[in-house]
This record gives sequence, structure tokens and C-alpha cells, in this order.
Amino acid sequence: MTEPQRKLHLNAFLMSTGHHEASWRLPESDPLSSTKVEHYQHLARTAERGKLDSIFFADSPVLFGEVGRRPAGKLEPTVLLTAIAAVTQRIGLIATASTTYNDPFNLARRFASVDWVSGGRAGWNVVTTAGPDAARNFGVDDQPAHAVRYERAAEFIEVAQKLWDSWEDDAVLADKAEGVWGDDSKIRAIEHEGKHFRVRGPLNVPRSPQGHPLIVQAGSSEDGKKLAAQYAEAVFTAHQTLADAQAFYSDLKARTAAVGRDPEGIKILPGIVPVIGSTEAEALKLERELDELIKPEYAREQLAKTLRLAPEDLPLDRQLPADLPSEDDIEGAKSRYTLIVELARREQLTVRQLIGRLGGGRGHRTFSGTPEQIADAIQDWFFAGAADGFNIMPPVLPSGLDVFVDQVVPILQQRGLFRTEYTESTLRGHYGLARPENRFAGSEGKQLTSIGSAF
Amino acid sequence: MTEPQRKLHLNAFLMSTGHHEASWRLPESDPLSSTKVEHYQHLARTAERGKLDSIFFADSPVLFGEVGRRPAGKLEPTVLLTAIAAVTQRIGLIATASTTYNDPFNLARRFASVDWVSGGRAGWNVVTTAGPDAARNFGVDDQPAHAVRYERAAEFIEVAQKLWDSWEDDAVLADKAEGVWGDDSKIRAIEHEGKHFRVRGPLNVPRSPQGHPLIVQAGSSEDGKKLAAQYAEAVFTAHQTLADAQAFYSDLKARTAAVGRDPEGIKILPGIVPVIGSTEAEALKLERELDELIKPEYAREQLAKTLRLAPEDLPLDRQLPADLPSEDDIEGAKSRYTLIVELARREQLTVRQLIGRLGGGRGHRTFSGTPEQIADAIQDWFFAGAADGFNIMPPVLPSGLDVFVDQVVPILQQRGLFRTEYTESTLRGHYGLARPENRFAGSEGKQLTSIGSAF
Repeated sequence: MTEPQRKLHLNAFLMSTGHHEASWRLPESDPLSSTKVEHYQHLARTAERGKLDSIFFADSPVLFGEVGRRPAGKLEPTVLLTAIAAVTQRIGLIATASTTYNDPFNLARRFASVDWVSGGRAGWNVVTTAGPDAARNFGVDDQPAHAVRYERAAEFIEVAQKLWDSWEDDAVLADKAEGVWGDDSKIRAIEHEGKHFRVRGPLNVPRSPQGHPLIVQAGSSEDGKKLAAQYAEAVFTAHQTLADAQAFYSDLKARTAAVGRDPEGIKILPGIVPVIGSTEAEALKLERELDELIKPEYAREQLAKTLRLAPEDLPLDRQLPADLPSEDDIEGAKSRYTLIVELARREQLTVRQLIGRLGGGRGHRTFSGTPEQIADAIQDWFFAGAADGFNIMPPVLPSGLDVFVDQVVPILQQRGLFRTEYTESTLRGHYGLARPENRFAGSEGKQLTSIGSAF
Repeated sequence: MTEPQRKLHLNAFLMSTGHHEASWRLPESDPLSSTKVEHYQHLARTAERGKLDSIFFADSPVLFGEVGRRPAGKLEPTVLLTAIAAVTQRIGLIATASTTYNDPFNLARRFASVDWVSGGRAGWNVVTTAGPDAARNFGVDDQPAHAVRYERAAEFIEVAQKLWDSWEDDAVLADKAEGVWGDDSKIRAIEHEGKHFRVRGPLNVPRSPQGHPLIVQAGSSEDGKKLAAQYAEAVFTAHQTLADAQAFYSDLKARTAAVGRDPEGIKILPGIVPVIGSTEAEALKLERELDELIKPEYAREQLAKTLRLAPEDLPLDRQLPADLPSEDDIEGAKSRYTLIVELARREQLTVRQLIGRLGGGRGHRTFSGTPEQIADAIQDWFFAGAADGFNIMPPVLPSGLDVFVDQVVPILQQRGLFRTEYTESTLRGHYGLARPENRFAGSEGKQLTSIGSAF
């Protein structure tokens, strides 16, 4: 695992004023930043200055209700990342979009469009969207079952990839002299007929610079790991301990090999919330200051929902009740549920302490220390078979990204662990992944003569 | 109609190498421009240099099949307009999106996001998407009936507007000292329950700079006019004669008044394809050169589909057959169908001549002349009660937009008919339209306490 040429991959996971739930209350923070494109354009330029592989936005088509607690509501990620594409040159742009509450034709087209607009920098974090509240924004009373959501997600990705391949790369002739623009033998109806979708195609966008936008996945349940092994090219995951991260890493690499894929073709990036100070004491002080800004009543209500309890079942200065449901009974965010319960049990945390830990990273690993210590923490997991890189989740923005880029990245570069310049221009290039072959190239195409009916 | 302060509104309708179907074959044209964001960013900057109100992209979620004939496939308009927003400051940005093949929650959010990213410059051209080919990309074998599509469109707009109003403008408190970010009594579930949609809300984006993105409509069928009278704030329409345009204008203004709206609140913009030369002869020569580049076999096939005939029923040098279906039997693009048939009958055109006329503007009015003559044509209709402005459809891009902006706009400005500087920063501002009141402001809100379930 220590051959010298192996490089880390670093993704910046961005979220309004930062990942710590109380970050918006700091004097430096703009609490209205979640709707300001300039804020995110600035963050993206910072990440690009640090030569990071990519930036990423989480998303769900629902308003999480505790609007008192922290900045709520956000710009739709493909829109926001497109606005960022226009003012950056190299950094990859990963948007979350739901397979449960989208149509494959529209979404495949949107990602292909972002890929064109960004010159090949688009990635799609595939999520299945847990919870009844999202369902109720789309005319249904409750979410489909976990397994059904993942089955639909797999078929959705298949349809999207077929649509992305519906134009061959050389389908456009642009022959002015003969007056022939496109070669319709190289543009095919996909005629997909599956359990969840019937989609004729072809897509109405030529094949994009990357061929397929990068497929990213972030669910770590059993269904999520199966989906990742089959389709994902990068995986965002949450682990509190090295042993858990190593187990996840080797399991997912093995599952990927088992379906016939190269395990190098899936990059596993655990989340880390780096709380950085010029001394360890300064970092711990910043962490403590942030935790003290958390209002426990909001956070307890949220924790109670996650655990399917009433808030009054969770006295702040006691540990979690002994009797909690098992992951099998949870229909959404399964792996996050288990992580929270195990964290509380392992470290014998009171509800108040647990809230502090979750407020920083929502289950991701918070690590407080000097730039050198953060670099060590990253290097340790990277060399220990726990990670191909990291999903960097600054607790406070913009300052937490600035300090990571200006103080941690140079250490990783000096150690030969991270690029000092971009060598590639696409997101796939940054992650060392090949441009996919077109699955239909050379096959007999369905002619398109029956499509088209408007002047 | 001639009070001095009344100003024209001008929208640039942009399309790859231009509206003339053979424009891509000209030496100046880049036949690959339809996927190049720089091409469109350049055009938008040109339109902004000319102080135009807005730019606009048509769209349909289907590939029209005659890929040999002209550039086919295009970037999804909300993505493309967002990339344009990032490099412009003032010009309005109108994207077409289908109410038949989208969900209101996702689309309302996307337009609100574009409105935020552009600082209040987003408009939505509401279309119902005719034709079975689009339907087959969404798991259905044929389009819903015309009336059903329009009924769904009306409910879709209602839901979108409710979602845009689900946050009051002052819902965000951002009270750092108290630790209260949002006021949940000012953020409401909309609890919409209609014939086509059930949507709980609220939207997961704060109310956008314009309150509601501008609603634009372009169908001129009976159902289309009803929808426009109820909801549209700008209307794109196609007329070949002054009398037709006057009749449409006065009819739609009266319908708008009849539903209780101010007729000034709906801006009617007929399309015009300006073929501009330094002399009239030069303009006519350019028009002829373009028409001679049309390959009639492609265009005849397209015309045959529109008329529900076989291509062999349309000999190139004969007039249309006498026996054609009536508009009532047409399920898509009804008004365009009638316009084409009436144009052919009125001017006794052969199929070849009709193809030339349609190849330039697809049913819109082509006008060839000097800049002065184009300005006269615009002024005449504007003063004759036929238009509040025009939808400018350059036959060739970028040159046709450059010459319009550099040579026609200054004449209109000298005549006092068009702004010489932007005075407003939003699309609504350019069109002289007020920011909508929030329909829920001050009412008892549904509390959101039951929403939200994820860390």
C-alpha cells in the first residue's frame, strides 16, 4: 500500500457556513451565505488553489424542518455547480441528485449538460433519499422501501449510462459541403424496458466530454455497498475508527472485484472534519467554542427523530436508552443510524456529549489538531488500507477551507502524497479513471426515422 | 398607443448557429456550437451590450430525429442559462421547461435557484410538450391529450407559485446571539392537493430575489391563450401578418383583463427573423443564399410530419393538398399547424416555396431589409397595437445578433423606443412588472415541527 507513486484524492464537501451546526453563529460567518453564489464561487476557487480533486454538495428534495437551528434550504446543486464551473478551470464538480424523485431522461441530460459546460468536470452523487417528508413533496405518502429504492437506483444508473452512450463520439459529421450534420446510424434509441423505467431515447445532447459523468455513492448500508460495488467510481463514507474504516475499505474493494471491476476503479474517501489550530490546544479550544454554541434542544429533537424516540426519552446528561431498534427496522439512512448508536455505546457518551460529537460532523470523524497532526491523521489512514483519500468537511467556512488548503495541503505535497499541479483537465482524470467506452459503438443502431415532429 | 414613454421590449431567441435551418452550413458558422458554452456566453454578452430585456432558449425533452439536417441536441436550458448568468450582470434569462415531463417541486426549486444565482434574472417559458416521441422518454406511449396537458400546466404553475411563496421574505432571522436562524412561523407547508399533484412543501430554498421567476408562455392555441391570460407575464407568439398580430394582441389583452389582471401585466412579443443587409438588395441576397442551402428532402419530411402526411403526398413544385385535417384534430402545436397551412393557402405557395419560408423562421415572420427598414417594421407593429415588443430570432449567429445590436438597436434608441441603459437589475424590472406579493404573508402558518429527519 506504500508504493511511492500512489497519491491521495481530496474532495471538499461544502455546506453554507460549514459542517459544524453552530458555525453560522461565529462572528466571521455570513448566515445568509447559503443562497449566495459568490460565497460558493470563492470556496471553489480556494479548493482549486489547493489542487483538490473536486468539490461536492449534499442534497435532498425536502426542507429539513429545524429552520431555527441552522441555515436551511439551499440552491439546487446542478445549478450551483454550473455557476461555479463558469468561474473555475480544473476542479471537479459533484452534485447530489435523487434517483427516487427524478426521471432518468431529465437527470441524465442535466448531468451531460453540466459536463459540457464544465469541460468534463461533472460528477453525480447518487442518493435514494430517505424519509416520508421528501415523498410528500412528490405526491406519495411515504418513501418506497429501502430495497426498492436501491433497486430503482441501479436501474436509474443503467438508463442514464445508456442515454449517455446513445450518441457515439463521432456521431456529428458537420459536413457543410454535403449538408449533412449528424450521422443517424451513430445516434440510437436505447429502447430501455425495465421494472422501474421505460425510456426510448436517444438523449438530446451529444456524448459529453467525460463520456459518463463520474458516479459517486455515499450510502454504506448493505444495499448501498452493493450499489457502490456495481457502479460507483468514488464513495463518500463515514467512520469513527481506523478499524471500521479498514473493514469497510477492504470489504468494498473485494465486492468491487467480485462483480468483475478493477478495485482501483473505485476510490474510497472517508469524511474528516478537520478542526485546525496553530497548536493542538488552540484547535481543541476552537472545537469547544463551537460545541458550546450548539443549542441542545434543537439537536436533541433531531437525535430523537433519528433514533425513533421522543425528545423526552433522551435526558441530556444520561446515556442512550438500552432498548433501541436494530438497523434492520430502519428504512432510511441505515448505516448512519448504526454509526451513531455504536459511537454512543463505545464511548459511553451522554446525550449532551453525543450531540456535541454529532454537531461537528454529523457522524463523520472530527479531528482536532495542528496542520501537521491533520496531515498525519490523513496519511495514517491512507497507508493503513482505510482510504484512497478523504472527504474534507471544514467545520467553518470559508476559514476552515482556507487553513486546510494553505497549511495542510502543502505538508501533504511535501510528503509526496498529493499533486502540486493539476495534470488532467477532467474529474475522471483527477481520480485516475479512464473515459468509458461507448457500449453501443459499432453495433447496429436503431434508425431514428420515426422521431421528430416539430418545426 | 403612442404615448412617448412607452418602450419596446426585446428578447433574443437564441439557437446554435441561428434560426435559419441552413445557417450551420455558412462559412462563418461553427457547426459544433450547440454544446459550447462560450458560444452562448458570447451571444448573451452581445445581447447585454444591446440592453435587450432577455435571452431565451426553446426546449423539448426529446431529440428531433433529423440529425442530418441541422444541429440537433442541446444543453438543458437552466444549466446553460446559469453558466451565462455567471458572466453577465443585467440581461434576463428565460428557460423553457415542460410541465408534462417535470415535477413541480424539483422545477420550482430549480428556477428559484437560477433566480438566486442570477440576482433575479430568471424566467420560465412554460410549455406542455407536444408529441408521442417525448412521451416515450418518460415511460408513456403517447402524449396526454392537449386539454389535459394544459390543465396540468395550470395546476403546475399554481403549485410552483405556492412553493415560491412558502418562505416569507423575512423568514430568515439569522439571530446569532439568540442562536435562532429561521422563523418557522414564516415558512409554511403548502399542503397542495389537486387533480394532478399532491405537494406538501415548503420549498427548500428561501424566496428568491424576484419572488416569482417571470412566467412566459408561447402556445397560441385556444388552451394556450387561456393559460397565458391567467398566468403569463410575457408571451412569445408567431404571426405572418399585421392583421393576425393585431387580432391576437387585442384578444389576449382582453382575455387577461377578463380574468381580473391588468393587461399591462402581460407583454406580447411576436417573433421576427430579421435578415439584415446594408441595402435591401443585400438583405434579399443573404436570404436567398440561405434558402438555397436548405436540402428540400429533409425539410419536406418534417413538413409532412407536421401535416400528418407522407412525404410523397407533397410534390415539391405543387401546392399543399386541398384535403388537410382541421386544427381540432391536431393534438400538438395546434396554432403552428394552422399558421403553416394558412400561410401556404394565402400566398399560394408551392411546397418548395413553403419550405423556404419555414426554413428561415419555422412559421415566424421573416423580414429582410436594411437596419432602418427593420426598425420601421418593428415600430409599425408596436404602434399599430400588434406588439409590446419583439422576440428577435437572428437567422445566423453570432453575426445576425451583432448586426441587430449594432445597427438596429441604435435606431430604436434614437427614436426613443428603446432603453439606452438598463435602469433595473431584474428581469421583472426590465419588463416593467412588479415583484409579486407573497400570498401567504401574515396568514397562520402550518408549523413545520414534523418535518426533518436527518443529521
